[in-house]
Amino acid sequence: MPELPRRRATVRDIAAATGLSIATVSRALNNHAHVAPHTRELVRQAIDRHGTSGSTTIYLRCPYQLTDYFGLIVSAVAETVKRHGHQVLLDAGEAGQAEPVLPRLPGRPGVDGAILILPPEQGEDLEALRDSGFPFVVIDPRTPMPRDIPAVSAAHFAGARSVSEHLVGLGHRRIGVLAGPHNWLAGRARLAGHTSALADVGVLPDPALVRSAEPTVEFGHRAAAELLGLPDPPTALVGFNDKAAVGALAAAAERGLRVPADLSVTGFDDIDLAQATSPRLTTVRQPLLEMGRMAVGLLVRLLEKHELDALHVELATELVVRDSTGPVTT
Amino acid sequence: MPELPRRRATVRDIAAATGLSIATVSRALNNHAHVAPHTRELVRQAIDRHGTSGSTTIYLRCPYQLTDYFGLIVSAVAETVKRHGHQVLLDAGEAGQAEPVLPRLPGRPGVDGAILILPPEQGEDLEALRDSGFPFVVIDPRTPMPRDIPAVSAAHFAGARSVSEHLVGLGHRRIGVLAGPHNWLAGRARLAGHTSALADVGVLPDPALVRSAEPTVEFGHRAAAELLGLPDPPTALVGFNDKAAVGALAAAAERGLRVPADLSVTGFDDIDLAQATSPRLTTVRQPLLEMGRMAVGLLVRLLEKHELDALHVELATELVVRDSTGPVTT
Repeated sequence: MPELPRRRATVRDIAAATGLSIATVSRALNNHAHVAPHTRELVRQAIDRHGTSGSTTIYLRCPYQLTDYFGLIVSAVAETVKRHGHQVLLDAGEAGQAEPVLPRLPGRPGVDGAILILPPEQGEDLEALRDSGFPFVVIDPRTPMPRDIPAVSAAHFAGARSVSEHLVGLGHRRIGVLAGPHNWLAGRARLAGHTSALADVGVLPDPALVRSAEPTVEFGHRAAAELLGLPDPPTALVGFNDKAAVGALAAAAERGLRVPADLSVTGFDDIDLAQATSPRLTTVRQPLLEMGRMAVGLLVRLLEKHELDALHVELATELVVRDSTGPVTT
Repeated sequence: MPELPRRRATVRDIAAATGLSIATVSRALNNHAHVAPHTRELVRQAIDRHGTSGSTTIYLRCPYQLTDYFGLIVSAVAETVKRHGHQVLLDAGEAGQAEPVLPRLPGRPGVDGAILILPPEQGEDLEALRDSGFPFVVIDPRTPMPRDIPAVSAAHFAGARSVSEHLVGLGHRRIGVLAGPHNWLAGRARLAGHTSALADVGVLPDPALVRSAEPTVEFGHRAAAELLGLPDPPTALVGFNDKAAVGALAAAAERGLRVPADLSVTGFDDIDLAQATSPRLTTVRQPLLEMGRMAVGLLVRLLEKHELDALHVELATELVVRDSTGPVTT
């Protein structure tokens, strides 16, 4: 029986060491039913000989602060990787955002694959990484991914459409949009979802009601103040995220507008903030934990050289109606 | 110039390779001011020559979801470890909270030290880990640490005292406390800070005004409703954290109480929530990022076998006065 390499054992290594098929080793590792006890024991012993866990190491990059949004994704990735008996090497925080980490990944010792949350601009590096054969999955891409790069994101279009449909159902037609940057995938897709919901009732959105920028509380505040100051102001404001909506609530309060009696406001994400506001925010829940789990599932399949056809996975969002939206009154 | 060892570069190694003092290298790595750009560059190059990462691996345990609170600590640890040219192995999330990870740490291959955020009960395992000689630092301990186990936390007593002093200065004497669990270090220390602020003006806190539990929004809501329903209700509520204070705001709104005109409410932590509420919360800012950085600094010194005398480090908090506190009116 061949010796396992010292540094790390992949499913492939364990298959080679035990004489079992890769699929069988994988089933045993994932605790599937229909694996004979003897087989399970063989796999266990092979892993033990190698030195337990330590096995597959997955590099996890998140060049943002781990708060309610990215922190939940990273938590789910860490938990799921651990459940597979693998380990996570974390590279997180905003400091190294501009660092060219992708080109160095394939040669990095002890790293078997990667889960990447990326800053906006990474096009060429990402394609080079794909061409190198290094296994990786992108979570929540900000720019469109080439078809053959595995990526997991929320269904931005459907989510934005559902919240605008909700407003349209309440009678709103002049709806201001506190949109994310135009060059963000999510920004464009959500604006399209909004447009489609309005078009369904025969209304073309007024471009004068759209403001675009990095979606912070400050942006939401400033953009909402501008829109509410128009001669013919909107009766509802759709935030790109919950932070922008929090800013919009502040702007409404400054003008003495009651939410939702005088103005409806919606968020997106459903982070903790959304329930701390008064009124609590109507928003769209992103499946952040599931995005993390799904990305690990895809990466494990790549590491085991399984077939992977559906490379772009969109996970359903959920409209959460709370207290910040109400019928239009004129 | 001597070659750096392959496996990992310590501050000592980089000092030897560059001819700089250990203190200077350390300052450069920690991004302090007063380090000449040329010196910074020398250090960077020395780390690069070594091959960056791959070097020292620090196991980071956080058995909680990485949201605004723990996520910020973990972000800072990850950034600082990276700045030192080391790497972080992340074990995060609530799933494995009860797992006995500490006993396995010393034998774990490729792990050089650990930064631990712990669930409440870990006493014996922690002392065994210390006795093994394995280098580790605890962040934000929930139970008192033995004197010789390095730990970094916020100055709970002083922080709680500062916010109660603020309320006392506004004339409040009947102050309700939405306290954390009695067996949490922070719970006891903050209650003591509160008591001392009241005692300074000749008032002994009324035990009937204290409610204790895991500090969630729901707890804050329920406990505040109880206190506000007393025949002689408090004129101010001190939350163990911002979440409890958010619950208190909801309870106040339900009773038609205006904050701060009828009731003052304070939080603790200064997470994003604190600025999303209306009115925005007066709270105590915990130095979450600095707690992460400091823990890495201590661990690096342990790894390099430096002297470490001040094993329990408390970092100063900051009172942030916003809109949820005002003069008592009777």
